[in-house]
Amino acid sequence: MKQQAGALLSSIRIERGSDRKISVQLYMGLREIILTGGLEAGKRLPASRTLAKEIGVSRTTVIDAIDRLVSEGMLVSRVGAGTYVSDVLAPPQTNAQQRDAPKDEQAEPQLSHRFTVALDSFAPRQRLPHKSQAFITALPALEAFPMTHWARISARHLRGNRDEMMGYGPPQGLDRLRRSIASHLNAARGIRCRPEQIFITSGAQQAFSVIGRVLLNNGDKVWYENPGAIGAGNALVANGARLVPVPVDGDGLDVEQGLQLAPDFRLAFVTPSHQQPLGHVMSLPRRLALLEAAKAANAMIVEDDYDGEFHFSDRVQPALKSIDTQDRVIYVGTFSKTLFPSVRLGFILSPGSLVPVFDQVFTSWISGPSTATQAIVSDFMDEGQFATHIRMMRRLYKARYDVLIEAANSLPSSIRVQQTRSGFHTTAYLDPCVDAGALVEQAKGRNVITAPLARYCLAPVEQNALVLGFGSAKPDGIQAGLKILSGLPALDI
Amino acid sequence: MKQQAGALLSSIRIERGSDRKISVQLYMGLREIILTGGLEAGKRLPASRTLAKEIGVSRTTVIDAIDRLVSEGMLVSRVGAGTYVSDVLAPPQTNAQQRDAPKDEQAEPQLSHRFTVALDSFAPRQRLPHKSQAFITALPALEAFPMTHWARISARHLRGNRDEMMGYGPPQGLDRLRRSIASHLNAARGIRCRPEQIFITSGAQQAFSVIGRVLLNNGDKVWYENPGAIGAGNALVANGARLVPVPVDGDGLDVEQGLQLAPDFRLAFVTPSHQQPLGHVMSLPRRLALLEAAKAANAMIVEDDYDGEFHFSDRVQPALKSIDTQDRVIYVGTFSKTLFPSVRLGFILSPGSLVPVFDQVFTSWISGPSTATQAIVSDFMDEGQFATHIRMMRRLYKARYDVLIEAANSLPSSIRVQQTRSGFHTTAYLDPCVDAGALVEQAKGRNVITAPLARYCLAPVEQNALVLGFGSAKPDGIQAGLKILSGLPALDI
Repeated sequence: MKQQAGALLSSIRIERGSDRKISVQLYMGLREIILTGGLEAGKRLPASRTLAKEIGVSRTTVIDAIDRLVSEGMLVSRVGAGTYVSDVLAPPQTNAQQRDAPKDEQAEPQLSHRFTVALDSFAPRQRLPHKSQAFITALPALEAFPMTHWARISARHLRGNRDEMMGYGPPQGLDRLRRSIASHLNAARGIRCRPEQIFITSGAQQAFSVIGRVLLNNGDKVWYENPGAIGAGNALVANGARLVPVPVDGDGLDVEQGLQLAPDFRLAFVTPSHQQPLGHVMSLPRRLALLEAAKAANAMIVEDDYDGEFHFSDRVQPALKSIDTQDRVIYVGTFSKTLFPSVRLGFILSPGSLVPVFDQVFTSWISGPSTATQAIVSDFMDEGQFATHIRMMRRLYKARYDVLIEAANSLPSSIRVQQTRSGFHTTAYLDPCVDAGALVEQAKGRNVITAPLARYCLAPVEQNALVLGFGSAKPDGIQAGLKILSGLPALDI
Repeated sequence: MKQQAGALLSSIRIERGSDRKISVQLYMGLREIILTGGLEAGKRLPASRTLAKEIGVSRTTVIDAIDRLVSEGMLVSRVGAGTYVSDVLAPPQTNAQQRDAPKDEQAEPQLSHRFTVALDSFAPRQRLPHKSQAFITALPALEAFPMTHWARISARHLRGNRDEMMGYGPPQGLDRLRRSIASHLNAARGIRCRPEQIFITSGAQQAFSVIGRVLLNNGDKVWYENPGAIGAGNALVANGARLVPVPVDGDGLDVEQGLQLAPDFRLAFVTPSHQQPLGHVMSLPRRLALLEAAKAANAMIVEDDYDGEFHFSDRVQPALKSIDTQDRVIYVGTFSKTLFPSVRLGFILSPGSLVPVFDQVFTSWISGPSTATQAIVSDFMDEGQFATHIRMMRRLYKARYDVLIEAANSLPSSIRVQQTRSGFHTTAYLDPCVDAGALVEQAKGRNVITAPLARYCLAPVEQNALVLGFGSAKPDGIQAGLKILSGLPALDI
């Protein structure tokens, strides 16, 4: 026994230079041995003096570690008879062999069937390095954000009433933020709604997940723009959706083709203000046709208005929701582009008929974003900073767009940049013979990040193109980036 | 036509004192009329001069509103022939009657079957007013939080690198926060793990939702402590769980009874460090029995360690995860109690076998909490503020607990306060003849908030009790509150 114990205990490594106290290291080392059966249940531990000598630590240290293990129940002290490994650690009779089986023989974890199916259906999503540069799609112009105002409001709230700012807020979201958003939607997107219809989420992705959870049975068909947004599609798939890729043309989602592919659709997911990723605006006739199709199928529509504020002209195209007389559109908004991505704030504008359902969802199990952040955003809106910022960003993105178009026109290449009327991304069409994937890799090697259109496609499309974001790129970066994509000599960015 | 138009148009209300510009009011009023069919497709609009006179606004205002509607596609200008309501607004032939049906005749929204079942199964959850007071359960001692340090770190990050702080961070969470958490778990909870096993979520609720989504088939049985936490149970139900209420005694969840009720369980949900809401610590034999039962059933265990840091003695009971040699425990942590609720930060510590799955989940569709907040928390931990704060809070909660126990002992009443060794809530047992619900209402009328134990029970239990939180209550509030609960004269709080 002494030899065996000696061998075991000498396996305990004590690092003298470590941050962790020696008695803690000893405690954890002994624990490990006991748990893995190296010292069996009912066996007596060597005397503390012996342990101290074998391991090379003080007796006090050993006693300290033993005390911890006794209070935890791993060891039992018998008065006058020593310290023993607790009987509770005895393995059950039937499993004596299994106990010694190495961990990697453990059965593979069982995932739910639904999730195993979903795993196969997820569109691969690249989470790029997030430097502001040409032609990153998702980043707005962070350097232009009025951080001074934001920081001022933020500091005010950190000094404010602790119960309000640090506690649990109302589950549907802060009342005054819901009011600020309702006012804003009215003025900017032409939507009339009550604050009670608005539910604050941790970004749009949570909104899509919740909507999917509430509305979709496993395998329910969802009309999905093809090409279309990647993350949103995955959120719906994760909740049981069978996405039906519906072609998109210059007027947006092709409703006629949708009706041919899936007349029995449950949900349609659209980006009417600025098709993600192609950039088109959904025409009014198409919008009306979509509403009509939804009515005939008793389906709902999710409107993802991710950057509808950034229209280049003053003539704003109102949201689809604003002509939704049948109350079938669930409008999802986000502050990721209008403020910045890490604010992680989005919202669901619920049709009246679903308000009681979402009320219960948010009360029962959803917890949304930070109350303090919600209060900051609300003030930022009410003080007028939000509207001012959006106006400035419209001009900035329009200016960057102009640089992009002009650069494209002046280059002797066959890249055709799609015109767009809003936002900060568009499509660049390539010659059919150009290998888009290879071009993306080459450009990446020269520090220009772009994505092949194929990445946004659930089903293949004819067009050979790249998606270019220009929100976070400076004008010279745009020009240089386009030169690089055109295969022309340009200084690396 | 003139008369009809006149009647319609005089229904447009213009508020001169309103914030909204008159032309916008007119635009929205006309739009509404067009959309609801008051002015039919193809009909000609009265001349702008007429409209101006009828409605009582300037002709310029009318032209402005009409221009907007034309650019939107609602109206069409025919040169030399006037302005007409666009033909696209013509209702489809078959639905002429339906178009005029009032909205409330629309079919009830169809929810998913799964969700309809879940709706019935949700445990009602009260979202209380969140004032710090006796005996609110969920709030920690907000007034004791070192906001100065937090604000300092926060300000530093707001001034920092914009791409990092404002952009999209890595989907699994900020690397340095994952490392800080791994170190902390090692030191404070006895858990050895790699940062790659840690996934940052928007609070623990999102963690429970994701786990349910990934592991549970519809109707899968989940051992659920009875009484037990409310929100977590709902998150699992929302993802298909059939919760099996398993009794709890002084040693925690009764594994034997669990095996009788549901030997084929898929998941067990436990709060081993501090039973929510009764306060017991799960004994070591029970922990081992639970691990053994999970192995036999090829089930997983979710450990909800919501306040395991706040042990009153220095002898910390390590987490269940720390003895999980089979890697079946999914440990969920939260900063809601150790920092404050509105920080909305939690994490999943994944078994090694599930790391690739969670990697894909977080990359494909989950977006977690604010990157900036993650960075602040990471620094707060690395600077040692977190450990200091927890040590102080242990002492504070122990002191408040002592006040509670002493007050209970000194009162001539039959309220028996359950002893506990950690955290900031416990149970107060009442005489069987006392109506707990009525007592809760009376106390609420005197500004003492408490919850009947029954609210935490999926299945009825024998004990008649209240759950008392003392984290956010000051000593005199605790004393006065207990007097009020005992039916004794006390000044209202």
